[in-house]
Amino acid sequence: MRKPFMDSEFLLDTEEARTLYHRFAEDMPIIDYHCHIDPKEIYEDKPYQSITSLWLGGDHYKWRLMRQCGYAEEYVTGKAEDREKFRAWADALSQAVGSPLYHWSHLELRRYFGEELPVCPANADAIYDKCNALLASGALTPRSIIKASKVKVIGTTDDPCDSLEWHKNLQEDKSFDFCRVIPTFRPDKLLLIGTAEFTEFVARLSKAGGREITDLASLKEVLTGRMEHFAALGCRSSDQSAAYFPCTLIGEEKCGEVLNKALRGEALSQQERLGFMTEIMLFLGREYARLGWVMQLHFGVARNTNSRMFSLIGRDTGFDRIDSSAPIETLAAFLDELDKTDSLPRTVLYSLDPSMNAPLDVLAKCFNEAGVKGKVQHGAAWWFNDNIGGMKDHLRSLCEQGALGTFIGMLTDSRCMLSYTRHEYFRRILCAFIGRLAADGELFWDEEQLGELVKNVSYNNAKVFFGL
Amino acid sequence: MRKPFMDSEFLLDTEEARTLYHRFAEDMPIIDYHCHIDPKEIYEDKPYQSITSLWLGGDHYKWRLMRQCGYAEEYVTGKAEDREKFRAWADALSQAVGSPLYHWSHLELRRYFGEELPVCPANADAIYDKCNALLASGALTPRSIIKASKVKVIGTTDDPCDSLEWHKNLQEDKSFDFCRVIPTFRPDKLLLIGTAEFTEFVARLSKAGGREITDLASLKEVLTGRMEHFAALGCRSSDQSAAYFPCTLIGEEKCGEVLNKALRGEALSQQERLGFMTEIMLFLGREYARLGWVMQLHFGVARNTNSRMFSLIGRDTGFDRIDSSAPIETLAAFLDELDKTDSLPRTVLYSLDPSMNAPLDVLAKCFNEAGVKGKVQHGAAWWFNDNIGGMKDHLRSLCEQGALGTFIGMLTDSRCMLSYTRHEYFRRILCAFIGRLAADGELFWDEEQLGELVKNVSYNNAKVFFGL
Amino acid sequence: MRKPFMDSEFLLDTEEARTLYHRFAEDMPIIDYHCHIDPKEIYEDKPYQSITSLWLGGDHYKWRLMRQCGYAEEYVTGKAEDREKFRAWADALSQAVGSPLYHWSHLELRRYFGEELPVCPANADAIYDKCNALLASGALTPRSIIKASKVKVIGTTDDPCDSLEWHKNLQEDKSFDFCRVIPTFRPDKLLLIGTAEFTEFVARLSKAGGREITDLASLKEVLTGRMEHFAALGCRSSDQSAAYFPCTLIGEEKCGEVLNKALRGEALSQQERLGFMTEIMLFLGREYARLGWVMQLHFGVARNTNSRMFSLIGRDTGFDRIDSSAPIETLAAFLDELDKTDSLPRTVLYSLDPSMNAPLDVLAKCFNEAGVKGKVQHGAAWWFNDNIGGMKDHLRSLCEQGALGTFIGMLTDSRCMLSYTRHEYFRRILCAFIGRLAADGELFWDEEQLGELVKNVSYNNAKVFFGL
Repeated sequence: MRKPFMDSEFLLDTEEARTLYHRFAEDMPIIDYHCHIDPKEIYEDKPYQSITSLWLGGDHYKWRLMRQCGYAEEYVTGKAEDREKFRAWADALSQAVGSPLYHWSHLELRRYFGEELPVCPANADAIYDKCNALLASGALTPRSIIKASKVKVIGTTDDPCDSLEWHKNLQEDKSFDFCRVIPTFRPDKLLLIGTAEFTEFVARLSKAGGREITDLASLKEVLTGRMEHFAALGCRSSDQSAAYFPCTLIGEEKCGEVLNKALRGEALSQQERLGFMTEIMLFLGREYARLGWVMQLHFGVARNTNSRMFSLIGRDTGFDRIDSSAPIETLAAFLDELDKTDSLPRTVLYSLDPSMNAPLDVLAKCFNEAGVKGKVQHGAAWWFNDNIGGMKDHLRSLCEQGALGTFIGMLTDSRCMLSYTRHEYFRRILCAFIGRLAADGELFWDEEQLGELVKNVSYNNAKVFFGL
Repeated sequence: MRKPFMDSEFLLDTEEARTLYHRFAEDMPIIDYHCHIDPKEIYEDKPYQSITSLWLGGDHYKWRLMRQCGYAEEYVTGKAEDREKFRAWADALSQAVGSPLYHWSHLELRRYFGEELPVCPANADAIYDKCNALLASGALTPRSIIKASKVKVIGTTDDPCDSLEWHKNLQEDKSFDFCRVIPTFRPDKLLLIGTAEFTEFVARLSKAGGREITDLASLKEVLTGRMEHFAALGCRSSDQSAAYFPCTLIGEEKCGEVLNKALRGEALSQQERLGFMTEIMLFLGREYARLGWVMQLHFGVARNTNSRMFSLIGRDTGFDRIDSSAPIETLAAFLDELDKTDSLPRTVLYSLDPSMNAPLDVLAKCFNEAGVKGKVQHGAAWWFNDNIGGMKDHLRSLCEQGALGTFIGMLTDSRCMLSYTRHEYFRRILCAFIGRLAADGELFWDEEQLGELVKNVSYNNAKVFFGL
Repeated sequence: MRKPFMDSEFLLDTEEARTLYHRFAEDMPIIDYHCHIDPKEIYEDKPYQSITSLWLGGDHYKWRLMRQCGYAEEYVTGKAEDREKFRAWADALSQAVGSPLYHWSHLELRRYFGEELPVCPANADAIYDKCNALLASGALTPRSIIKASKVKVIGTTDDPCDSLEWHKNLQEDKSFDFCRVIPTFRPDKLLLIGTAEFTEFVARLSKAGGREITDLASLKEVLTGRMEHFAALGCRSSDQSAAYFPCTLIGEEKCGEVLNKALRGEALSQQERLGFMTEIMLFLGREYARLGWVMQLHFGVARNTNSRMFSLIGRDTGFDRIDSSAPIETLAAFLDELDKTDSLPRTVLYSLDPSMNAPLDVLAKCFNEAGVKGKVQHGAAWWFNDNIGGMKDHLRSLCEQGALGTFIGMLTDSRCMLSYTRHEYFRRILCAFIGRLAADGELFWDEEQLGELVKNVSYNNAKVFFGL
């Protein structure tokens, strides 16, 4: 007896799961504490024009899939007609049974377009026409999507040099009173010391900070200034991404010397680069702790694997991969270094290599603070793990290594406004996971208590953790 | 209510799985694109004499199991009586619940011998007698097995120096018209530069190529000649195996110097060895691309872990293991190097470490070509992963990271003629996997479309991918 | 239809599982071949006073969980009132759905206290009062727990310098005739050469051995003497733990020189340290083989991750983690080195990194001995893997790579006397695992044969393996 395809009970395979989801999870609002949405897009609130641009305009997850199915770049990021691209996409998706894109796409069609047809070549035109008709009506704008999705907080990802004008505009817009859009401090380019990108970044930072950066002291002063600026606009968190996080302690003086060498354009040794990265991250970490911010650390990515495509269409286009050699040993030492002086901020660790689940969860539980639930978190299944299997593995690891009830839950990490259904996806998986334990007699079924736990993981924990 | 033991619905746990398997998968022919069958065995087509020699004559999977169960080498590869060996094997197998050998053995008994008794000490003699009686009738020969198994293509594994006479004989044999046996170019010994095996190989290669190899130019010329010879006999693929694949770019000139040193018997540095390996593999990769061949790369094996047994009974006897330190970072760089100049052939990546599933799948999708479905494949669960759990994990990874519908499916990698049932095993797991998604409402049940996908993965995709 | 919470059929989800468990596993006695129980505690046999001290007095698994839930150290290892601590624990546990602690705690309440209430804040006081009332009655002492749990052998973990007086006392105590408590030789401190702990250890060892250790010969002589002493008191096994096991062969002479340097207080190179570790472990391994002992190797731990807490409350307090960089390549070489001279003892390999399951299982099967079932074992899911998911993964790996029937089964590795329920937990999971295979038609249901296999894995295999 086949279950209906992605109906209201999608993924909810026990009575307990259905109760937890419908009574407790479904109606909770959303805190999307990490994404890549442009605040300008929200401020301007322009209606979307085409399902093709909305879906395929910037989503490298989808591009990868189309390329794997043999579609030429013309149909992916190129100049093919919108309808042709959509047909290509529908064909690719129909090959991708069991993929997260398959589920995300169907959820988005159902929730935002009222479209229940399955995506496949035969339905491509009908879906394309129906979606575009709805878009043409102007019914779908960024703000209408946010409101309908009950998103209360959006944490964008922002360059330290950013003026944050669009965040400011949004906060001053009285008509936009149902959601807070707050910036996140992302100083990744600092970690690129020794490259042209670093030099360019320091120049921009000098300008943004209104003070020439000539040494470590002035760099720190400008950074602190920028953090205060972010804080004034509601920032509650930083985000850093690197292949891995070093812990090469060279001390402040040596760090200053390395910076000076870099500013003079001299070549740096690997040791010097890692030393600077470590010291500047320790400085930042202490500042985050002082400001009460959360420190988000994303690691284990190798970017731009395909040089040919990088030279053709640039970064963030679907050619990144998992760096399976990223160590967590130095990350552990780095966290310890901050903790030693009681200046470890609340922290979220995201690893791209799923075989790191257990080591990372165990590491996280080595650092705690009285009064803080889950001070160091193993962040939600990220990127290539953001799918049913990856989320189940992540939840299982959380349970095996500690208290699931302290987890701060889901984020979209998305560039696309329709991705809020990923919170629904996550909540269904969460409720199915807990419901299954109860149905199998492995967990005492206390509906109210488990319902509270589900609400906490869906929303409340993130609210407290980020101080929102 | 217990399901019958390994009956016609074995592993098919949903109605959808049963439909997919019986309507679409079961009757598809087989392309066994990578195995270790000796073409001479097929040409000569001699009837098998004994179930002991057929099963235990060359299968190191089984030898490992017997040794683990405490059987002395006499019963494994030694001189014990056939019946005694078989009894030992039956005992070992009955300890190995849930092992792939348990399933393979029972499938082989059922499909080729019509024997439905479960293997256990009490049944050992009955099974032994029944199998040997059937063998004595002459009913089971290599060709009869191939025909009954509907094998359309067999890709053997061949030394570049091989005359390929048996392939030639087979192709000229008019009575053998139901299957093509094609060679696969396996130049592994080239990667052993700096060892006696390399020197010995180059000498043989000179002889096979009819031209003295004195430098890089002559080496390449002979290799190209051998590849043309393989191509003339239908070769569509190469296969390379190494602990890992380096990407140490030293350039052609330096590569030539390293070769000259090696030919003069001088010692090489690690850097020189890796540099030569890289450059020669780039040369080979470009040749494969030119010839339209597939490049199969097997990595992550540590061989001959047990020195004592190696000295007693040699290589490929059951003492290899997973090298969990094999990096994929250099493999990524190597593929990129070929792709940069548009000379990356279609490629299959097999990794022995199952924790590499996700990193490898993600890497594979970084390289694509317009018009080619799944240009870089994550090859079917290999060796120690070739079992239900390993195949499910592999399928799950394919789905999470891309389009399952582009997968080229199963191969036996076997030395034994009876192993074609592994294709049945795989197809059952595949249909169960997809059927479960549909039964659970996670996949739209379009029987014809999913049936087509199953047929593609079972057969059609490999046919297109290898250009058969 | 929800299954009752942790009733007699807990985890037994098929009819076959229930038969296997109740007919074969449930009543088997226990060999707890590796734990951290203090033999003095058993000898003195004092009644326990408080559920708080019994549960929270020394169990760093529980401490971690409480800290993660934000409880101050006062409630964890500090001076809060027993009842307050218990309330904190009850709250933390109710957040830990699906955790092993959740199941262990409920099993212990049911089996030893007859308490069926689920642990949660609302029930905390009632459970606390009931447990303490039972303890006050004097009914629960170490020996009563051992007897009720049918523990036949307890393998403690002991310093080579230990007089083993409590083991002796226990063996001379005629009233304690239902269980053997035997020592295990744990020479970990030898591996710390180059540190103060090593020097201090050698001094203590000299004293214990009654002979000054001045060089390698005297060190070996004293070690052999201590091993004979352990053997006389029934020792059947050693246990060694390290971040990883090296195989840096420097030879006996060089090893002696390194020792002399260390004894003179001179600094050692990394190479010298690894060389000494290797040579001394080879010596020990040969001695174990001579004595017929089992060599247990635990690796992949990084200890004392949190420096601040280490300086406050010391080691073994809940701040260790998985070292995901521990190689098994050198372990393979080390085993081979012993095997070369036919002096590899029976060995158990425990790895803390679950992604090492397959590589480790495959490695284990590379070493065998005629007449020994499973000579090198992949030890039961250890520490952070000791939970349902971890045990299932471990069993699955055993099945995929060999003969489950040779497995020596479970151990508690515990510091707490109540942990024998973990054997019950394991046996339920084992029977569920095998039962599921049979129920699904993947395994022939021969009740007696599978029952025998279950009895072997539960008890008989360990008895034979350890020579008890």
